[in-house]
Amino acid sequence: MSSRDGYSWTQEQGLKAGVPCIGAIQPPTNLNPASPDIFDVIVIGAGYCGLTASRDTSVSGLKVLLLEGRDRIGGRSWSSNIGGYPFEMGGTWVYWGQPNVWREILRYQMQDSIEISYDFSRGINQYLLAGPDGTQRFSHEEEDAIMDSALRKLVNVDGEFGRRVIPFPHSATFTPEALQFDTISVADRLSEIRDSLTPNERVGVEAFVLLCSGGTLETTSFLEFLHWWALSEYSYDGCIKYLVKYKFRDGQSSFAIQFFREALSSGNLTYAFNSPVASVTNTKDAVTVTTRGGQSYRAKKLISAMPLNVLNAVTFDPPLQKGKKAATDIGHVNQCVKVHAEVRDRDLRSYTGISYPHNHLFYGLADGVTPSGNTHIVTFGGTHQHFHPEDSIDKTKQALQGLVPMDIERIVFHNWSRDEFAKGAWFFSSPGLLSNHLSDMRAQQGNIHFASSDWALGWRSFIDGAIEEGTRAAISVRRDLVESPAKPKLA
Amino acid sequence: MSSRDGYSWTQEQGLKAGVPCIGAIQPPTNLNPASPDIFDVIVIGAGYCGLTASRDTSVSGLKVLLLEGRDRIGGRSWSSNIGGYPFEMGGTWVYWGQPNVWREILRYQMQDSIEISYDFSRGINQYLLAGPDGTQRFSHEEEDAIMDSALRKLVNVDGEFGRRVIPFPHSATFTPEALQFDTISVADRLSEIRDSLTPNERVGVEAFVLLCSGGTLETTSFLEFLHWWALSEYSYDGCIKYLVKYKFRDGQSSFAIQFFREALSSGNLTYAFNSPVASVTNTKDAVTVTTRGGQSYRAKKLISAMPLNVLNAVTFDPPLQKGKKAATDIGHVNQCVKVHAEVRDRDLRSYTGISYPHNHLFYGLADGVTPSGNTHIVTFGGTHQHFHPEDSIDKTKQALQGLVPMDIERIVFHNWSRDEFAKGAWFFSSPGLLSNHLSDMRAQQGNIHFASSDWALGWRSFIDGAIEEGTRAAISVRRDLVESPAKPKLA
Repeated sequence: MSSRDGYSWTQEQGLKAGVPCIGAIQPPTNLNPASPDIFDVIVIGAGYCGLTASRDTSVSGLKVLLLEGRDRIGGRSWSSNIGGYPFEMGGTWVYWGQPNVWREILRYQMQDSIEISYDFSRGINQYLLAGPDGTQRFSHEEEDAIMDSALRKLVNVDGEFGRRVIPFPHSATFTPEALQFDTISVADRLSEIRDSLTPNERVGVEAFVLLCSGGTLETTSFLEFLHWWALSEYSYDGCIKYLVKYKFRDGQSSFAIQFFREALSSGNLTYAFNSPVASVTNTKDAVTVTTRGGQSYRAKKLISAMPLNVLNAVTFDPPLQKGKKAATDIGHVNQCVKVHAEVRDRDLRSYTGISYPHNHLFYGLADGVTPSGNTHIVTFGGTHQHFHPEDSIDKTKQALQGLVPMDIERIVFHNWSRDEFAKGAWFFSSPGLLSNHLSDMRAQQGNIHFASSDWALGWRSFIDGAIEEGTRAAISVRRDLVESPAKPKLA
Repeated sequence: MSSRDGYSWTQEQGLKAGVPCIGAIQPPTNLNPASPDIFDVIVIGAGYCGLTASRDTSVSGLKVLLLEGRDRIGGRSWSSNIGGYPFEMGGTWVYWGQPNVWREILRYQMQDSIEISYDFSRGINQYLLAGPDGTQRFSHEEEDAIMDSALRKLVNVDGEFGRRVIPFPHSATFTPEALQFDTISVADRLSEIRDSLTPNERVGVEAFVLLCSGGTLETTSFLEFLHWWALSEYSYDGCIKYLVKYKFRDGQSSFAIQFFREALSSGNLTYAFNSPVASVTNTKDAVTVTTRGGQSYRAKKLISAMPLNVLNAVTFDPPLQKGKKAATDIGHVNQCVKVHAEVRDRDLRSYTGISYPHNHLFYGLADGVTPSGNTHIVTFGGTHQHFHPEDSIDKTKQALQGLVPMDIERIVFHNWSRDEFAKGAWFFSSPGLLSNHLSDMRAQQGNIHFASSDWALGWRSFIDGAIEEGTRAAISVRRDLVESPAKPKLA
């Protein structure tokens, strides 16, 4: 099976749109004349959030219609298996300290399907830091020391490296100190500590922050960066473990498909792919969803599992509540550019590097070995020096070579910025968005439950947060529909 | 509501059996003439494992009968609210790095119902180490340094502090190195490193290990201790965070009741408390469960959520499979004695201490402040110097005073060793049990699914592991009963 999404390039085949994906669903719909006139719940979006919501509601006996604009499940997290190797087009890494995703991994007995991305035992075992003053080579221990020192300076606003600002990283409320740090950007914070950073620390910390946010230093909320840091146990070592270390041996789509299969096996799931939604009308007793193709579907409840940046592409009647509309108009800032290179240089297996601020791809690390023995390198750019990889493969190659010289056999990527169903990569907020609008984004409106990793409490922006939110929506809908006062209650 | 379980003592009231508990269920059964002749599934045991299994199956539409010998939910984790303060009779602490329990905390929106046990900002801010050579006083920083150093010596069998032995702490398989360390006890390991430990390190590490295992050093599998260490991120700091830091402001029973209420609201849960099971008969198509009172119930599937140490009290026909029977005959070793003291000494709020090896309670820490302003101190003993607190309150008081002088107003405890439905506290294994029998303990037998925190893969012995196992059993039963080939399948 293949998806329309994604691009691949090789010398022989040139640039091709569309790549293989086991998450592409055939047939694209199971709607039929016997499908319900009115569903219990419609779920819009088949990313992890929508998949979780669809699964939990359908398994609990509700009649569910899942609508998805794409031809595949997974949303911003999906993998393409090319040449027997899974390239992760979006969300990749998971960790057993992430509660929602790890619970699912255990539930599907996939705990032994996890492997470590990097391998510092082979080949060129170096960290290349290409900054304004040329390229320097370091050991990975030196890399860790630079990053650890730089990040500790960045986050140490309270003498406890952020622990007082965010003591409970899954809390629904902000401490007063936390609110204060949502009024400033990482650029603001960096200007406060600029005299304390060495030049290499400065390059390292700026590139790391941009790797997290996909924005610019000016559009990256310092609070949201502190939140990532708190979730990662307030340490650089924790950041590595939680953010870039453990991934599925067979790719994200091998995991996502479990949710879809389980929902389908309930017998309560109707689904339609290639069905982008144009409008949503909410009345007292039902919600009507109309696709761009003109089909209308009705349900008692709606779970919108669309990302923040695309909510404005759907017409809501009545319109989105004021605060929710304001958040949607602001949007999130992440325009990450993630490019995979399959390279013939086996010695690069232990490579990591930064090339910043001049290079279009500023972060790279070796991420695996393909069956043919090539090295897989994953690289990242963003709003800073933003580009569209498919517009010029030569420019893309230059950006890759700007990280480390490599002999490129294949390039694979998904352009999230031009993806109409994402309009960006994972959520990252500019200053003010969270302190002003997190509760707005999370609020129910009439019969519509809004669920997205973009406004999760804990691992917001992550697969974990998507599952957290899909879980929340499903239990809320179930409470609305099933747990009526007529049911038996505890004395 | 009150439970028969637990004891409290005050000068005025003396020793009383039975304490208040919001997890005591009234009415004790909702069985009625309309109850099914045959259920889809019977769940034996209403601890977190059985509650999770009952909830997940009943919410998914299966007709469930939950049988429990006690008058309350929670099994080995329950709280008693006395004087407006929750005393935790068993399992207490949770952490957001524990995936199964934290997923539920988020799901029930209880993420802001968590508080920190200790408070090192008030009163006597000291660590008292009462060893063979008398009592010494240390700061908590010195305490941490002693424990950190001692534990790192204990676990550093691979030059990486256990990371090579257990790289994936939720794995279903053991590395070869891991298997080797299940052949020895912590006593064996301590004899290897005895020359490297200072006397204080020795006292600290022995007491800490016994706090974890509730056995003796000789009966504590070194591998299982390494597993706790790996789960706790291979650090003493991690042990504190995961094991003894964060608890429910309103007690464990305020959490457990959520599971029960949700299951009940499905309309699919029948339950009977005060219904200890005498026998289980498994035939090809059904399971018959007979209580000690002589009532028999039938179901297509059975989920046994009883702990390892009580399986032998139930007659299985056909008998338990050989490996499972062997594990049951071995049992686990944890005979933890947990005693709460409410004391008038406000200055003890920042106390921690060890009194070992001579004292019957060898570990204590201040855990909260009661509404009347008293300090709550929680203390631990075990197989080492084992005693039954209700047999002599004077002896219990002496053991408390042996930790630190205190002015005792109230004593609260649950004697897990004499509890016929637990026969011990949380699971801890002697050498050999896990490497020989973990897969036996986890195995299904006919229509019987065996689920318990005692054989969870990840946070085995913890509330998290109980939920992991209840989840596994529920999905397995559902697959057996619902996901037949007749249901629609993914193309």
